[in-house]
Amino acid sequence: MSALSIIFLGTSGAVPSAGRYLSCTVCVREGELLFFDCGEGAQFQVLKHKMGLNRKTKIFVTHLHADHVLGIPGLLHTMKLLGRTKDIQIFGPEGIKLLIEAFSEVTHLDPPFKIEINEIKNPEENPVIYETEEYHVEVAPLDHGETPCFAYALVEKPKPGKFNVERAKELGIPEGRLWGMLQKGLSVKVSGKTINSKDVLGPPKPSRKLVFCGDTRPVKSLAEFAKDATTLVHEATYKDEHKNKAREYFHSTASEAATIAKEARVKILLLTHFSSRYQDEDLDQLLSEAKEVFEKTILAQDDMVIRIPLDDGKKFKIEYL
Amino acid sequence: MSALSIIFLGTSGAVPSAGRYLSCTVCVREGELLFFDCGEGAQFQVLKHKMGLNRKTKIFVTHLHADHVLGIPGLLHTMKLLGRTKDIQIFGPEGIKLLIEAFSEVTHLDPPFKIEINEIKNPEENPVIYETEEYHVEVAPLDHGETPCFAYALVEKPKPGKFNVERAKELGIPEGRLWGMLQKGLSVKVSGKTINSKDVLGPPKPSRKLVFCGDTRPVKSLAEFAKDATTLVHEATYKDEHKNKAREYFHSTASEAATIAKEARVKILLLTHFSSRYQDEDLDQLLSEAKEVFEKTILAQDDMVIRIPLDDGKKFKIEYL
Repeated sequence: MSALSIIFLGTSGAVPSAGRYLSCTVCVREGELLFFDCGEGAQFQVLKHKMGLNRKTKIFVTHLHADHVLGIPGLLHTMKLLGRTKDIQIFGPEGIKLLIEAFSEVTHLDPPFKIEINEIKNPEENPVIYETEEYHVEVAPLDHGETPCFAYALVEKPKPGKFNVERAKELGIPEGRLWGMLQKGLSVKVSGKTINSKDVLGPPKPSRKLVFCGDTRPVKSLAEFAKDATTLVHEATYKDEHKNKAREYFHSTASEAATIAKEARVKILLLTHFSSRYQDEDLDQLLSEAKEVFEKTILAQDDMVIRIPLDDGKKFKIEYL
Repeated sequence: MSALSIIFLGTSGAVPSAGRYLSCTVCVREGELLFFDCGEGAQFQVLKHKMGLNRKTKIFVTHLHADHVLGIPGLLHTMKLLGRTKDIQIFGPEGIKLLIEAFSEVTHLDPPFKIEINEIKNPEENPVIYETEEYHVEVAPLDHGETPCFAYALVEKPKPGKFNVERAKELGIPEGRLWGMLQKGLSVKVSGKTINSKDVLGPPKPSRKLVFCGDTRPVKSLAEFAKDATTLVHEATYKDEHKNKAREYFHSTASEAATIAKEARVKILLLTHFSSRYQDEDLDQLLSEAKEVFEKTILAQDDMVIRIPLDDGKKFKIEYL
């Protein structure tokens, strides 16, 4: 099972605040960077922390509000100037293509790498928007008023358990092609006898599911979408005191986010996207309101890294860049 | 004569570097903010330094490369969220309209203030692009390869000198309308005798001329455009060692910029837009190369404020935000 981290590059909501850039959360998986939103200033953080501009990279945009997308053009520009050669893929709601293309045309970006832009249409009918041999990414609609907004889930595929070499030899299975088939979960025939993969494989290795949400009112359907997720990154723009504002502007309070996390039975809840009006003591209050509902809640900070454990028995580790 | 300052909010060239944001220079005049370029991160600086989001504001864009314009959308978005009501004017090369409009449409900006976008066409025939009672702004073309790029000059109109009340009384000019006419530089008739304004006015108050350049090779015509300017803000992407790069990428070395300043006989030269490859010692070298040609040269830093004196006899003051 591969190393997996979530890095928060920007955790302020709508307007930047002291020490907090605009929305940008990066999942690092097997050396690949998966951006979930990319607010203005993302390139400053990527450069400062030497995260690498020529790595395999994808950008998933939850919705087309300025504070979630304006970092993309500058990141692409700097990637070009600093010699990126690898193609890059961008996923987002309808309109993302016009935004990136208008910018590229007007500023003569002309990068030496391909920018593949995928607009997400009919997410209810086609929730899986990307798939590799190791994971898939699926989307679910959220409720941010008139603005289409998504939650993304990165779901790892279950991997077969450890191959028991001694047992395979006992069963008289010759080393080579048949071992490979069994390791992939297939059955084989040896001397007319069928051997199932489970006869020689240990229990499947745990797969992980990470959910990243955009701006939203708390939505019931998200609890199902995020069911049993390893991590849920959810906005918490307001504390309970301002729940009317949360309703008015189609955002969530921390305790509303925690209620979803509890219902979904996620391992940990990571709160981000805080109103820039809040001072440290407000955020302490916001966190404690969430913890009253769901204890395993972490308040994201810029530069915070969450190292996801290989399996459920181990602890999440918090580090800083 | 009004207070006048130049504030550097971003001084890195092309790619941000440690401690240097992307190109953004602001002239503050009588409380009005005049931005010359607005690279990504400008809003962070404006917020951090509490420069005010509802002040009379204009943005002049030298050219449409990403590092000079990408701060505009985020600044407009934050202005809207924090309650701006005043209209804003943006000037720049053809294409600026498409960039701002595509952004505004896709992100549903819908601000409660008007964004007036003025694309500059035929600058040779119509160099004056904006005019008030107190100053005008004119443009001149630069040489940044295939990318249209401008220098802007903010030129204050000469103001009449101090009105000599005693002398006016001696000449028997009744207080009131006639005094006002004389103060405006007009002549009046008193008891059949013509009195010229110069009979009662001191020497005209000095007017100032500030020139702000975009990316460019050193161009001869700029020395004429910047003739006798109070300040010349010029790019100095490279030191002499990299003069071939300056030629290849249509930039200037510091000593090339200084040669223009010397020929134009400006009061001070302010260098900005430094290659992100340079460390402090490289920039010391770059500055000394410029000073060999033109002694009154200052190397801009992020957050540096240049206070422009009221008249030639006084010194420029350097402060920091």
